[in-house]
This record gives sequence, structure tokens and C-alpha cells, in this order.
Amino acid sequence: METTEAILKRRSVRSFKDKPISADVVKKLLESARLAPTGGNRQPWKFIAVRNPKMIRNIKMFSEGLGGVPTLIIGVCCEDMNTVTVMDIAMASENIMIQCVDLGLGSCAIASFNQEAVKKLLEVPAEVHLPLLLSIGYPEGEPRIRPKKELKQVAYEEKYGGELKI
Amino acid sequence: METTEAILKRRSVRSFKDKPISADVVKKLLESARLAPTGGNRQPWKFIAVRNPKMIRNIKMFSEGLGGVPTLIIGVCCEDMNTVTVMDIAMASENIMIQCVDLGLGSCAIASFNQEAVKKLLEVPAEVHLPLLLSIGYPEGEPRIRPKKELKQVAYEEKYGGELKI
Repeated sequence: METTEAILKRRSVRSFKDKPISADVVKKLLESARLAPTGGNRQPWKFIAVRNPKMIRNIKMFSEGLGGVPTLIIGVCCEDMNTVTVMDIAMASENIMIQCVDLGLGSCAIASFNQEAVKKLLEVPAEVHLPLLLSIGYPEGEPRIRPKKELKQVAYEEKYGGELKI
Repeated sequence: METTEAILKRRSVRSFKDKPISADVVKKLLESARLAPTGGNRQPWKFIAVRNPKMIRNIKMFSEGLGGVPTLIIGVCCEDMNTVTVMDIAMASENIMIQCVDLGLGSCAIASFNQEAVKKLLEVPAEVHLPLLLSIGYPEGEPRIRPKKELKQVAYEEKYGGELKI
């Protein structure tokens, strides 16, 4: 799929088919994350790919933000919660979510979950943070389209508040 | 360009040609950002597209992290610095940087700059944050390739530390 199409077509998907995701596909997603931008080349991230249905159900019990039953969850861990680190893992996560569109997968980024409980399930060490889960699967039906602000409301030219004339 | 290629080819570019970026291209980049994922559909972002060469030179004076002379800087503003907000603007910024690759542009995300000074230049209100600048232009030469960790070092299966067997 063309890059522009993948970026513009991405929607948060919360309803998934019960269809397994192959190892090859998981590897492509992780590879997309590995090569994301990272401040000072620190790469302060770890990604945990979970496909075991029982573990996915367990994670879901502690994740109020998780809609539907995904067939893959990627837990996104980081060393600290500095702003640059948080931006790094978010950019890597967006790479995964754009790559998902290209592979016919839907995804949703989830920050509303009981981090301590999920860390325990995934055996994440106390000093490591787990601020984000990506729920991934083959979409069931069409995702709900939510209204977006117009470009002029979110983009300016030359200065803050400068009218967009392009 | 294929999505996978754009994601994997992206490098931080710090050397740019003195070639203007058209309004159409700027609009495509901003549109990519507008449709990025955002927690609770908040869209807590504003993007300032700066193409005026004099303003770009002024911003550069206060931005130690900015290499080369870009022909476009996008200032990424947000309402607060909550973790979810920071992840939102980072995902939107990654959309811009992936779209850049597709359009033959290079980009670099910059967090090392004097935020107060650049806010003043761009007339950003005191209560608005400007944690990130994206420097963008047509690449001059090949960007430096920095070594990346192997996939097994950053990705696990089923639990933290679980060996990647895929």
C-alpha cells in the first residue's frame, strides 16, 4: 500500500476477527518499531509481543481502554518517563500502527490500563515502565469514524495563530 | 512509495538542499499529522509550518539540536505535557516524518532547543507548550547511518525477557 494511503486510512480499531497473526507479520511490525527515530540514538525501548490467547484475555481484564479481543498485544516498555523517551516510544508505536494498515491489520493504542497488574502478568521488572499497549488484529467490520478538527483549526503558518493560506 | 519502504528507509537528516518546499507538500505533511491517533480524540495539538528563511535562521540560532539549514520547520505545540498528550504529538510527528520519506524529503525531530526563545519568535502563548521541532528539507548527500540494536535486543515474546523465536 502507498505510504500516504496507509497514514490517512489508519483508524483506531476496537473489534477484531478471531484470526491468528503469523510470526512473519509480527516480525515486520517489530522491525518497524526498531528503526523508529530516537533521541541521541538511545533506543530506550523494549517491545513484548503477546499472542497467547489466555494471556491476552488476562491483560484485557486489567485494561479498561482495550476494546474487542485482539490476537496480538504489543507491550511497549521504556527505561524512564522523560519527555524524549516518551516521544521515542510513541513514534515507534506509530510506525507499528502504520505498518498494520499496510498489512491489513487494525490497531489501537491503549494508555488506560492497570500498569502494575499488566507488568506483573508480563514479568516486567519494577524499574521498567509500561506506559502503552498496542492491541492488534484483523478488523471486524468498519471502525467508528470520529470527527476530526479541520486543518485550519490545528495548523498555522509562520507563527502561532497565523492563518493557513495553503 | 510502499509503506514498509518509507518506514524502514527513514533516517534523521541533518543536511539539506537550499530548495523550497511547495505549499502542496506542506499541506500533505500537515494532513498526515491531523489524522494521527489521539487519546480520547482530544487532538491536543497545533502545528506551525515555518518556511520564511529568515525565521528559520532565527529559530536555528536557539536550537543546538538542529543540524543543517532546513527549508521547512514544523513547530509542534500542545496544551499540556501529560504523558498521553506527549505520545499524541509524537505519533503525529512520526506521521509527518514517514510522509516526508514518501515525498523525497528528509526530516529530523529536535527536542534540544531553547523553548522559551523559540516560543517568543513564533508568538506561542505562554500557556502553550512547544516541546518539539521538526526540521525538514530535501536531503543533501546521504544521512549518517547510526548503528541500531538487533531485534532480539529490543523485542521479546510473551513476557519481558522472553526470547524472540520468530
